[in-house]
Amino acid sequence: MKVGVLGGGQLARMLALAGHPLGVSCVILDPAWDACANMVAGQVVGAYDNSAALDDFAHLVPVATYEFENLPVESVARVADQKRVYPSIDALAAAQDRLHEKTLFRELSIDTPAYVAVDSLADLEKAVTEIGVPSILKTRRLGYDGKGQFVLQPDTNLEEVWRATGGVPCIVEAFVPFVREISILAVRAQNGDCRFYPVTENTHTDGILRLSIPQSDDPKQAQAERSARRLLDRLHYVGVLALELFDTGDGLVANEMAPRVHNSGHWTIEGAVTSQFENHLRAVLGLPLGSCELVHGAVAMVNCIGKVPEAESVLGITGAHLHVYGKASRPGRKVGHMTICGPDAATIAHSLAELQAMASDCDV
Amino acid sequence: MKVGVLGGGQLARMLALAGHPLGVSCVILDPAWDACANMVAGQVVGAYDNSAALDDFAHLVPVATYEFENLPVESVARVADQKRVYPSIDALAAAQDRLHEKTLFRELSIDTPAYVAVDSLADLEKAVTEIGVPSILKTRRLGYDGKGQFVLQPDTNLEEVWRATGGVPCIVEAFVPFVREISILAVRAQNGDCRFYPVTENTHTDGILRLSIPQSDDPKQAQAERSARRLLDRLHYVGVLALELFDTGDGLVANEMAPRVHNSGHWTIEGAVTSQFENHLRAVLGLPLGSCELVHGAVAMVNCIGKVPEAESVLGITGAHLHVYGKASRPGRKVGHMTICGPDAATIAHSLAELQAMASDCDV
Repeated sequence: MKVGVLGGGQLARMLALAGHPLGVSCVILDPAWDACANMVAGQVVGAYDNSAALDDFAHLVPVATYEFENLPVESVARVADQKRVYPSIDALAAAQDRLHEKTLFRELSIDTPAYVAVDSLADLEKAVTEIGVPSILKTRRLGYDGKGQFVLQPDTNLEEVWRATGGVPCIVEAFVPFVREISILAVRAQNGDCRFYPVTENTHTDGILRLSIPQSDDPKQAQAERSARRLLDRLHYVGVLALELFDTGDGLVANEMAPRVHNSGHWTIEGAVTSQFENHLRAVLGLPLGSCELVHGAVAMVNCIGKVPEAESVLGITGAHLHVYGKASRPGRKVGHMTICGPDAATIAHSLAELQAMASDCDV
Repeated sequence: MKVGVLGGGQLARMLALAGHPLGVSCVILDPAWDACANMVAGQVVGAYDNSAALDDFAHLVPVATYEFENLPVESVARVADQKRVYPSIDALAAAQDRLHEKTLFRELSIDTPAYVAVDSLADLEKAVTEIGVPSILKTRRLGYDGKGQFVLQPDTNLEEVWRATGGVPCIVEAFVPFVREISILAVRAQNGDCRFYPVTENTHTDGILRLSIPQSDDPKQAQAERSARRLLDRLHYVGVLALELFDTGDGLVANEMAPRVHNSGHWTIEGAVTSQFENHLRAVLGLPLGSCELVHGAVAMVNCIGKVPEAESVLGITGAHLHVYGKASRPGRKVGHMTICGPDAATIAHSLAELQAMASDCDV
């Protein structure tokens, strides 16, 4: 069995690693000859808008998926004209544009922060009057890891901020006071079967995910599942979907969705019966889904940003697992992650703190 | 980090797959251009006794290991002259020759069946008088999966059997009535730290392993560990060692050892905190060892012999994991395995029976 993956970063790499035991080989399309997934996958080297490369890629695989959502929709459509692509282009298009995404959430009665579309400085001024401050100006497209976001305060110079966006279509979103950020990873099979991982508490710094801790028996699990299921069903979704939510204390407010495997699900490799990577491949290939249950009493994932701590230090901690992505060190870059598992939160607390300290030392 | 592996079969493949998350790339040496490990590892194509290939291989890697013990010792020595090789050549040499192996067991006060060296038909006749029947004639070298073994009964024509061995050096071993066959997988780090996986009950048919079930709190765990530890320490061992034992009901009698990762440890991929493959790499690279503890209440591994059952059927079973080796189907060939995990033996019993039935249907 063969699966094509548009993009060849760490998500494609972990998909490929999950594929080999199933007898599934991945072929990536990535413009970088040294894409980190290509140590464990075949590769077509080519730009995402290179028609010849897209056709070569489509020729090689019976079915394709993607590892990031900032792909030109036309490129994915070109592949989809030739071979099956999951998740659907509808899901990709919705996730690419914050306005479409939020509109979809509203249609499905999934709560969102108040938001207003902004296409000009005049719109921005009007939006701030309407939404108030603090609020957040976000470019509608191409945002990730906090990029393309601008916090609006009472003293913010709106003209300057508008210039910083480059004048591209944006939205202004109300700032939602939250008690915690969570995500839910859901997976839908071709036959409509849906499974949900336990919701995960996430901690971001400088817009980048640092820490994910899955929660067993979370009081908001059912609400998160209901929202995710509406999206899966509406989009005739196939594969893993991540939905990021703010927990306001009263309820959940949807932030954004990612139509792919997600950083906040990396803990599933050791922490769940079936990893998000294997379940995504199973869905894309029309195979039965695996259980999303936790296999440990407590699990936590720490991202390695900038560079990866010494293997010797990480592996010296009982129950710690290291995942190196094979990418060059660079400030702010996700280059690996570490997972710690144990019988309960108290048992892993000290080890988790050690891993966080190691990650912090490397984040230069 | 890079590790060389002599041999490119499924054990090398699973070592390579365990390596990637740690940032470890494997390079295999294998005469077959389509060795199944080479989808996830680099490869030098060459015969195991080809000096130029061995030198190319040694040039590429800082440290090497091997995935099977039927390698010419001189070849491994040629690599060891250039780079570090673990486990040591002493361990390899002892495991290659049933007489040396049994002698070593005796020296270390590890019980063995009664045995006698046999180098001629006259020796064989004398041995049968001394040991009695039923007993087993085994070639001293190059035996695996029941190959090179001949059961001796009262009516056996000894001349015929001796001819069947090709007249190579052999031993005759007393047949040991056993209540079960078990193995223990042990791992020793470069600093002498030793860890032991739970003993595993193994079922063989036609000399080939079919089923492995690790045992928590086995009454013979301590005795098995003592024997394995003596071997590890005597051989200044680095890496994973498998020791196969007969449980006679009274005690344990050593059958054989394998200086490598082992089929009866494949369940450790999903069933233990750290897999045998990762722990072997950790040892070979001088990294701290990981925990060998079970992560599920019950685990079982079923070998796929001949061909692999349909992925759709296997993955439809909750808690089942499939491992396809990427080898062509062939009667009697190990082409994959399946692991089932669950909270307790009763819960997985039905699923295990289903997997065994699937494996049996494929074993043509």
